[in-house]
Order: sequence, then C-alpha cells, then structure tokens
Amino acid sequence: MNCILGIDGGGSKTICIIMDDAGKILGRGEAGASNYQSIGIEAAQKQIQSAINQATITALNHTNNINIIAICLGLAGVSRPEDMEVVKTIVNQLQNSQNITAITWELKPSHIVICHDALIALMGGVGDAVGIVVAAGTGSIVFGRNHQGKTKRVGGWGYILGDEGSAYKIAVAGMQAALKYYDGRSETTILLENFQQHLQLENIEKLIEVIYRKEWGVKEIAALAPIIDQAASEGDKIANRIIDEAIGELVIATSTVINHIFDSQQVVEIVTTGSIWLGKCGLRERFVNSLIDKYPLVNIIYPRHEPAYGAGLLALKML
Amino acid sequence: MNCILGIDGGGSKTICIIMDDAGKILGRGEAGASNYQSIGIEAAQKQIQSAINQATITALNHTNNINIIAICLGLAGVSRPEDMEVVKTIVNQLQNSQNITAITWELKPSHIVICHDALIALMGGVGDAVGIVVAAGTGSIVFGRNHQGKTKRVGGWGYILGDEGSAYKIAVAGMQAALKYYDGRSETTILLENFQQHLQLENIEKLIEVIYRKEWGVKEIAALAPIIDQAASEGDKIANRIIDEAIGELVIATSTVINHIFDSQQVVEIVTTGSIWLGKCGLRERFVNSLIDKYPLVNIIYPRHEPAYGAGLLALKML
Repeated sequence: MNCILGIDGGGSKTICIIMDDAGKILGRGEAGASNYQSIGIEAAQKQIQSAINQATITALNHTNNINIIAICLGLAGVSRPEDMEVVKTIVNQLQNSQNITAITWELKPSHIVICHDALIALMGGVGDAVGIVVAAGTGSIVFGRNHQGKTKRVGGWGYILGDEGSAYKIAVAGMQAALKYYDGRSETTILLENFQQHLQLENIEKLIEVIYRKEWGVKEIAALAPIIDQAASEGDKIANRIIDEAIGELVIATSTVINHIFDSQQVVEIVTTGSIWLGKCGLRERFVNSLIDKYPLVNIIYPRHEPAYGAGLLALKML
Repeated sequence: MNCILGIDGGGSKTICIIMDDAGKILGRGEAGASNYQSIGIEAAQKQIQSAINQATITALNHTNNINIIAICLGLAGVSRPEDMEVVKTIVNQLQNSQNITAITWELKPSHIVICHDALIALMGGVGDAVGIVVAAGTGSIVFGRNHQGKTKRVGGWGYILGDEGSAYKIAVAGMQAALKYYDGRSETTILLENFQQHLQLENIEKLIEVIYRKEWGVKEIAALAPIIDQAASEGDKIANRIIDEAIGELVIATSTVINHIFDSQQVVEIVTTGSIWLGKCGLRERFVNSLIDKYPLVNIIYPRHEPAYGAGLLALKML
C-alpha cells in the first residue's frame, strides 16, 4: 500500500505518523528527541528510525506492505541550507538501513519535504496550511501563512534572544520577582514561599545552587512556570503581572503576523499550541479576549490534529 | 617585616596586595581567575599563589623578609560555610607549599579573613567599611554596611535570576530589541544594524549561531553592552530606554539598601564600580541625578582604591 510518513522531530520527542494516500492514519510511533544539533546526527537518525518502526508495527494491523512514496520532516531549528543537507542525508540513511522487511521506499526527491516545526504545527493545528500558529511552550514563536502562500515568522529566537511569553520566560520572571521581594525591593508576593516549598529549599539563597550548580537547562527551568500560573490563579498581584506581560508579548507577536500577511477584515484561524495554554489562571481566555478586541474576525482554536499529522498532510500535498 | 596580604579573587583575574602593618603598599601582583567553583580548587590555589609571588617580587624592593601576619581573601560567590572551609584549606596549602624563601607565615586563625567580593570592593572603594558599593559589570550587586556593622545586600543573583542593570542584561535587552524591530513588532532602532556590523553578520538571523552555537558565555555577551551605550549616546530611543531601565533597577536596588540600613537624612558614601559606569551615554550622570533627587545627602564617588587594597585594610583591622 502506498503510504506517507509525517515526522515531528523535536527537542524532547519524535513522533511519526503513517497515513495512506487519502490521509487516513494507519500507524503512529514515538521515540526520543531527534534534534541533531544537540544530540548528533547518528543519534537523531536512530530516534527517527525508532519512531518509524513503532509506527510501522501499528500500521501492519491495516496492511502487510508499507510502500513509502512521500515523507515530510518538521524539525525544530532547521532553516539553513546546511541543515537541509544534513536532514537529506538522514533520509537517505533511513531508506538504506531499512530493517523491517514490510517497508519499502519509493521516494522521488520532490516527495521529500523538510521544514521547520512551526509549519507542521500550523498544518496539523488548523488542518490546512493557512492561518497562524501561536506556539508557546518551553520557547515561543508565532508563524503564519496566507492563501497566497506568503509566510511571516515572529519570535522563535530562543531563550536568550527572545522566547517572549514562553514558559521559560514566565518561570524566570517569577524567580526574579520572588528574589526582588526577598531583597525588599518590591511588593509582597507568595511566589517566594511557593518556590521555596516547591523546590524544598531551606532558604531562598539555595535557589542559586539549584539554578546554576545543578546545571539546570532551559527545560527544567521552564517546568517551573506552573508555580506562577498557580499563584496568579490564587490572585497574587505580581504573578498576574507576569502572566499579563506574557500575554501582552504574545498578542503583539500575533498582531504583527496578522498585520503583515492578512487583512484585518478577513477571518483568520489561529491555533494555540504549547504548554502555557494549559494553565489554570485563565491565560488563554485573556489572550483570546485581548486579541478579539483588536481583530474581531479572528477564530482562535485548539489544535485539530498534532504536528506529525500536519507533516503527513504536507507530504500528501506534494503528490 | 610584618606584612598583610589583601587578595581579590575574581572570575577573570586575581590581584594580590602586600602592605605593611601601617597600610603602606609594598607590592602588587596579578594572576588569572581564581573562582574555584568554575576552575577547581587546585587551579584556584595556583593562581592565588602566583599573584602572591608576583606581589612578593615587587615587595622585595622594600624589604628582604616578608612575614605574613594577616590575610584577607575577598572571593566572588563565597558565602556558604562549605565555601569557607574550602578557602581555609587553600590558605593552609599556601602556607605549607611556600616556594619563596623570603616569605614566612605567622598567621593566627583569627587573622585570616574570608569574605565575599562586594565587601572588599566597598572597603577599597570608600576606604572604610561603611557606605554602599554599587557594582555593575558583567553582573550586578548593591551592598552596604552601616556604622553599627549592619549589612544589606540587594541583587547578586546571577545572570538568570537577577543581575538587573548589569552589562549582561543591557546587552541581552539590546539584542532582543534589535530582533523585535527586525520582526516588525517595535519602533525603529539602529541597534539592528549596529549588532549586524559589529558581529560581521551576513544577516541578523546569524545572531542565533553566534549566541547559541558558538557557546558564548555570560562574559562574551556582556561585552556587547557598549553597542547599546553607543547607540544611546547617538540618541537612539530604544537604546536609551534600555539604559534608563538599567539605571532604574540600580536606583531601586541602591534605595533599598539605603532604606534598610541608613537614615535618609544621613550622609552616605556610595561608590560605583564595574564596567557599565564607563559608558559614554551619560549612564552614571543619570544614575547620580536620579539618586540625589531621592536622597540629597548621598555622596556618590569613584573608587578610592581597588578591592585588593580593601581586602588588605580588612585584614589590618583584625590585628
């Protein structure tokens, strides 16, 4: 059976979807991170292979031969020509080092799509390559594509240079606010006590050891964002100010994309993806209200499908 | 001759001052970084030894026997009891592994002073252990001590958790502002062009490679602060807003220390140390004006002596 692979390769996991050439999902598999810039090309390839194998095992319930005729890989941090070459090499290796006999490959070069993760998130989230995705998890990026195929990206500059409105930025702002209160230079906030409790610190000075000496990375820090969300939902003023600033940044970024490639009198579908929308302080509601105030015709939705499915749809379009 | 050692051990260099028991400088030496938390205990000890040896060579022009009766080491990041023990071990090693015959040691335990770097900066800068030091270089901290010996620290939480008003924070804010303008979400600023030129980037997207892929550290990023200073001095609005925010943070931090341990009707000497005060956009002047507006009796000075000399003075006080 002619099949299509959609692959979402991220910094924490890799997801593979196998679909038939009508877009019906036949199988799905998961593996570890496949960001080759951090883990190396060989390790990335192994994870992608593993996700494909997992997906194949489930797909074999539907068919006993999987003939791959198109593939789309959406990968975080892939944008430069050098990156494209690396990913093409990985795809070649995948075809050659095939270890499941039920899979065959019949890939034309034009049926290999390599793109960044925001595009597959948009495609999966909206179910179409037109609209805007507001992705705010560990990092943040707003990406849009209009009916004419024109795209616009805002943000996505990473945790030092940008990522405004991300879980990382919210977590860092929360810790800074707690320490400012501890120093006596700001209003009262329960964040101080809450960080201390959550991290089981004898005193807040120990936060230095946790953040710098345990070599915490961006992900570990971003995972502290729910502390601010919780405090905000309990009415903490400082925590709410941090959440409002995050929303403000995401509204500005989204507005910039609307203004660049859409007509404000046009209905635009905007999909929100990422962990920060799951909070309980009403962050998403506030974002929606603030954006609809400015652009009454936007339609803000939850993702209809996952990004790996979006990758599959993009590959399907190539046929 | 009975002598005192004052040692300033920092993240980029180590300075040693040898003084006689009247406070007269006999010798001065420099060596590499001695922050043992980053470079290890043995390497730190070697650098301190090297700084002492350098200082000894110059001191031997004044006397042919240096009998050390007191020592003060001011070290960045030293505050926990564990740290104190490590530094005591280093001092013991220094006494035992002596390789210059002209040096003898007659140190009573009570004549060994180990403290953090802000205290020796205050002592050196003011020439007395009373006043406030506003240190803003790569990082930032405000530290004060009153006549009763009561101290107050604000900031010093490092580049993730704080360091408001530091060169690192100014540099990062500058890059973020340049990228926001590039994205189309802010007012115009010459920072975009200036970063691109300074770092010789084909396009600003390459900033990602410089900051993340070249594994730049805090120091390398902080060294970009003069780009914002320059733009501010040329009247760039965005750059001036960044500088004003940095000043605002330093004024709040300094005010907090004044309010905690001084009487606002009291004359307080405040010494500014660190690279950010050297800029040409009038940052220091604006800080002075803003602070004097709130506390007309403060006296803001440039450092009278270097921190290593302050360390020597602190050791002298123990005799």
